[in-house]
Amino acid sequence: MTRADAIDLALVGVGKIARDQHLPAIAADAGFRLAATASRSGGVEGVENHAELDALLAARPDVAAVSLCQPPQARYEAARAALLARRHVMLEKPPGQTVAEVQALADLAAAQGVTLFATWHSRHAAGVAPARDWLASRPARRVRITWQEDVREWHPGQTWIWQAGGLGVFDPGINALSILTAILPGPVRLTAADLHVPTNCETPIACDLVFAGAEGLSVEARFDFRWEGPPRWDIEVETDAGLLRLAKGGAALELDGAPQRLEDPGEYPDLYRRFGELIAAGASDVDLAPLVLVADAFLLGRRLPAEPFHE
Amino acid sequence: MTRADAIDLALVGVGKIARDQHLPAIAADAGFRLAATASRSGGVEGVENHAELDALLAARPDVAAVSLCQPPQARYEAARAALLARRHVMLEKPPGQTVAEVQALADLAAAQGVTLFATWHSRHAAGVAPARDWLASRPARRVRITWQEDVREWHPGQTWIWQAGGLGVFDPGINALSILTAILPGPVRLTAADLHVPTNCETPIACDLVFAGAEGLSVEARFDFRWEGPPRWDIEVETDAGLLRLAKGGAALELDGAPQRLEDPGEYPDLYRRFGELIAAGASDVDLAPLVLVADAFLLGRRLPAEPFHE
Repeated sequence: MTRADAIDLALVGVGKIARDQHLPAIAADAGFRLAATASRSGGVEGVENHAELDALLAARPDVAAVSLCQPPQARYEAARAALLARRHVMLEKPPGQTVAEVQALADLAAAQGVTLFATWHSRHAAGVAPARDWLASRPARRVRITWQEDVREWHPGQTWIWQAGGLGVFDPGINALSILTAILPGPVRLTAADLHVPTNCETPIACDLVFAGAEGLSVEARFDFRWEGPPRWDIEVETDAGLLRLAKGGAALELDGAPQRLEDPGEYPDLYRRFGELIAAGASDVDLAPLVLVADAFLLGRRLPAEPFHE
Repeated sequence: MTRADAIDLALVGVGKIARDQHLPAIAADAGFRLAATASRSGGVEGVENHAELDALLAARPDVAAVSLCQPPQARYEAARAALLARRHVMLEKPPGQTVAEVQALADLAAAQGVTLFATWHSRHAAGVAPARDWLASRPARRVRITWQEDVREWHPGQTWIWQAGGLGVFDPGINALSILTAILPGPVRLTAADLHVPTNCETPIACDLVFAGAEGLSVEARFDFRWEGPPRWDIEVETDAGLLRLAKGGAALELDGAPQRLEDPGEYPDLYRRFGELIAAGASDVDLAPLVLVADAFLLGRRLPAEPFHE
């Protein structure tokens, strides 16, 4: 089903998220052809693999686009190398380890005249665009975010999450913030944060956040990795004109208690559709807002000791 | 020496920095007239004082500009109130507690059509502009920043520095980062940070930072509040074409070992001159870069326990 004019794409970092999401989405997208991978731990059956991205870029000038889904610690150098080689770049979330490095990549992409797409996959969940449209005419008064999942089930072996810069529970929590900043018409700012950090880890296992927005809007968020039941990825928004509830990470939407029927292309298929659209338009899409809110939480937040975590 | 067309200005927060720097600078600037103060702990002899800024704004519609130098925890609400009342606003550094709140203020100022000036006083030290000009044609290879001062001497009684959001040693250290980002032609990004946090405090008493910039530029910074001698506020820049050394917080400049003769209007007089210039031009000046680098240090940095601090 690949089109004759499909863009040759390389995938960098063939881990869990690549196999679970990126490879099926690329296979289903007629606009992209998986031309190569870069991975030190083995690539994909039947696809050319290079241990290093630099070697791939040198060997394959025909690869016009690169999708990066390795852990964020290594993403900046890879993105920079690809942009310098004038390839279009798509970044998994979070787009980097720091705000400044993502801004630098955005500036570099603009200077090189190529597309940079800093993705927030949760913004492509089926309920998010309808939620944004519904809230456009109904001012939000109060938002409650509950983002609770069992880290042992959802992040097995991801030790980098617990290292400084690895975000801890903000790794999933930033998905909630990416939805929040997409559905509200105005910005929010963090006013208080409690970060619960296991005494043997460098990043939080849970947090409580408070944000404020325009006209008395208040937002409370609870992120928790210690939850052992089925995950809860819920956002409730009270407005003067009714209640909105996003559940299942944005895939389900209720308006005043009534479940909505939603079109659902899938988050990652919609990401690649959007990447193709940006490339065709010669545009970039780099929204730093979710990462800024996380950086602000680390800047402003109180750190409270929590029980040691052992996987 | 005040001009007939001088702008009536209110000063908010009459503490150490106001008395040491702002009041003398305002008194010496013919373009501003100190019309009122807002302070709960008493104002300035012979000048109308209000306990609350809201009361001042209501009572004095003639006050066209407001300079905020209370601790950063209270600055956002005050700035927002002043901007909503269509007054020009000057912010002491740091301009806020979070990146998002300063961005929100910049957006509000633009919407209101008034000036917002987020000041970085160290950028107005006498050596900074000549350093920037000298480095414009001499690519920097290596930068060493040493910012060491005795917190008991320079921040007596400033307990807010040790509370979450109070920045700790980044309160002076952000001055160094404001100079760094002013004298280099390109951006830098943080790549590693060690934050030394006293076991009885929430913010660092010392830190070691590493940054990278364009073309192999590396920057190392050491901030330390535990230094007991005369302060060291030094920045050394190695280039292919010689060595630049800023000392005394930017007030002294050496090029290849030769001390430079500098014009020195003083940091705060130059800040108010610039504020007047921005108001006249209908422009704002809000550079988030130094605060972003600090937020990135909290986001990416390792926290290491340090000896308890007792003032």
